[in-house]
Amino acid sequence: MRKHNFNAGPSVLPEFTLEQTAKAVLDLNGIGMSILEISHRSKEFEAILAETKALFKELLNVPDGYSILFLGGGASLQFCMVPFNLMNKKSAYLNSGSWASKAIKEAKFFGEVVEVASSKNDNYTYIPKNYSIPEDADYFHITTNNTIYGTELKKDMDVKIPLIADASSDIFSRPMDVSKYGLIYGGVQKNLGPSGIAFVVIKNDILGKVQRPIPTMLDYKTHIENDSLYNTPSTFAIYACLQTLKWIKSIGGVNTIHKMNVEKAQMLYDEIDRNKLFKGTVTVAEDRSIMNVCFVLNEEFKDMESEFLDIAKVKGFVGIKGHRSVGGFRASIYNALPKASIVALVDAMKEFEKAKIK
Amino acid sequence: MRKHNFNAGPSVLPEFTLEQTAKAVLDLNGIGMSILEISHRSKEFEAILAETKALFKELLNVPDGYSILFLGGGASLQFCMVPFNLMNKKSAYLNSGSWASKAIKEAKFFGEVVEVASSKNDNYTYIPKNYSIPEDADYFHITTNNTIYGTELKKDMDVKIPLIADASSDIFSRPMDVSKYGLIYGGVQKNLGPSGIAFVVIKNDILGKVQRPIPTMLDYKTHIENDSLYNTPSTFAIYACLQTLKWIKSIGGVNTIHKMNVEKAQMLYDEIDRNKLFKGTVTVAEDRSIMNVCFVLNEEFKDMESEFLDIAKVKGFVGIKGHRSVGGFRASIYNALPKASIVALVDAMKEFEKAKIK
Repeated sequence: MRKHNFNAGPSVLPEFTLEQTAKAVLDLNGIGMSILEISHRSKEFEAILAETKALFKELLNVPDGYSILFLGGGASLQFCMVPFNLMNKKSAYLNSGSWASKAIKEAKFFGEVVEVASSKNDNYTYIPKNYSIPEDADYFHITTNNTIYGTELKKDMDVKIPLIADASSDIFSRPMDVSKYGLIYGGVQKNLGPSGIAFVVIKNDILGKVQRPIPTMLDYKTHIENDSLYNTPSTFAIYACLQTLKWIKSIGGVNTIHKMNVEKAQMLYDEIDRNKLFKGTVTVAEDRSIMNVCFVLNEEFKDMESEFLDIAKVKGFVGIKGHRSVGGFRASIYNALPKASIVALVDAMKEFEKAKIK
Repeated sequence: MRKHNFNAGPSVLPEFTLEQTAKAVLDLNGIGMSILEISHRSKEFEAILAETKALFKELLNVPDGYSILFLGGGASLQFCMVPFNLMNKKSAYLNSGSWASKAIKEAKFFGEVVEVASSKNDNYTYIPKNYSIPEDADYFHITTNNTIYGTELKKDMDVKIPLIADASSDIFSRPMDVSKYGLIYGGVQKNLGPSGIAFVVIKNDILGKVQRPIPTMLDYKTHIENDSLYNTPSTFAIYACLQTLKWIKSIGGVNTIHKMNVEKAQMLYDEIDRNKLFKGTVTVAEDRSIMNVCFVLNEEFKDMESEFLDIAKVKGFVGIKGHRSVGGFRASIYNALPKASIVALVDAMKEFEKAKIK
């Protein structure tokens, strides 16, 4: 029986993706070879890559003039590729969580980093607002969803310099106005596929403005010119992403997924707010993520934490323990998490309240 | 029906690997989640990683004092990570093929590169010999097997400075004396698993000798200290490698595999040498690779190339067309290629000869 998978990533994927990829691992469309055994330069894989990019473009409504890349190394490698390629002397970052903070650390290898605002002193319980962005910076970097702290920057911002977004944990969870971004990147292991690769959506004309020499594999131009095939990409991961994109399309596209996500998140936040045992950790309501829901037990019930985790285990909930930086609980409720898993969690919270508060 | 898969990489994998990974994509050992859906920090994945490393160490006989890493980005990213981490001002490279040449190109971003010898002017038809290695270089880099040109450096060399080897296409095909190397790396997509990651076997004490700042993801120390879990690795690719390592062990280990490889290669080279239509492209017999067998039609039969490729197609041979740099044919005959595929190819060559030379 399938678990209720609240993992933060790698995380739950559509059963369609699992079934299709498992089949392809044995034999890709009856060609007598596995998806793992075909050349990245074969006509079969070229068709897979082309379809993946086309669906990505269609579903996220990516304008012309952007390239869509699938690169090895995950989002963490992008933390250094972004400044390597885009920062001459100065860049601006919003510090909204641990991952933003890691991105900032890497940018500092390449020059001056202006941290325009930070919610670090409040343990990242909200997204900083009302800051100014230096117009002489080469770009402004944001993290659209903070997986660990459960906050989300849901609006596509208007910024005068190129806007760069790490959208690892909310890509394809909501419609985005891609035209407002210079570059959007992320690991695919939350809403798209298996871990190990990053997607990069890059506006071609933001490149070519830095002076430093860039090693070939770290240069976005290499991958644009070679259509992600300069070296052997993770052919399996790309195939799995394609299946998930097909699944997103089959249920109605990103707008539909977004409605479902909002409904799922609302059900869970409503219960957190209603239930006398629990409270949310995000202090500003509009910043609550629809992907990662962080909550803790109220002070007087704190000692019941491991008890609720034990119940969760019995009920088949996986990944519900909060990150050590926040404590308590975290339910990651990505696109592929069925509503039934939210219902099960909400029911368990209600039951727990009944048992504890007579 | 399974094809005779002579692909250069991604390439044929053991059926055991395909069956086990397909099962795990649906449900990993009955835990109610796919291998694609579990956290890289879960106890399940920790056990997978530990077992993969232990088997790798056991089968390749890796001495203590070395770390075994699985990193994103493939061997091409290692081309720049090696000099980033190990080269202060000067390094030495043997230019034995296209991949060696690409590695040299990346090293030049970091300082002076001494090309100790090159067979480029002879289209890499042999491995250069009788050169001297500058002892003031920080390391000496070789490519143990040249996938495109079908040459192989089969001896573990004694070198006074750290020896670095790209062993992408012959790792686990023969026993290696790892103690003679400072670092061995390679993409896993030939003899181990799916494309997308690189293995790195690194002697810990060769690190810490360069002055330059290294971005976190490009620093081997990061990955050693975090046991390949600094960022989310390709959990699926590592799981697939584990299955192949189990398969290698089950058939008797690397010595057994090596005997099988030598026998398979010999059968094919014998036919190439015997058959009046064909000839091998490697000019020095001892340099002939046991992994990639390159051959062409003799001058007077050159116009029959596409005819033989058509026959190959009908017979279910995949990937037999030679790389454009060499032309003719290339049979990549990695560990997992069954002897039956060699027999089929040899038979086809004999038949073709009979049809053409009355």
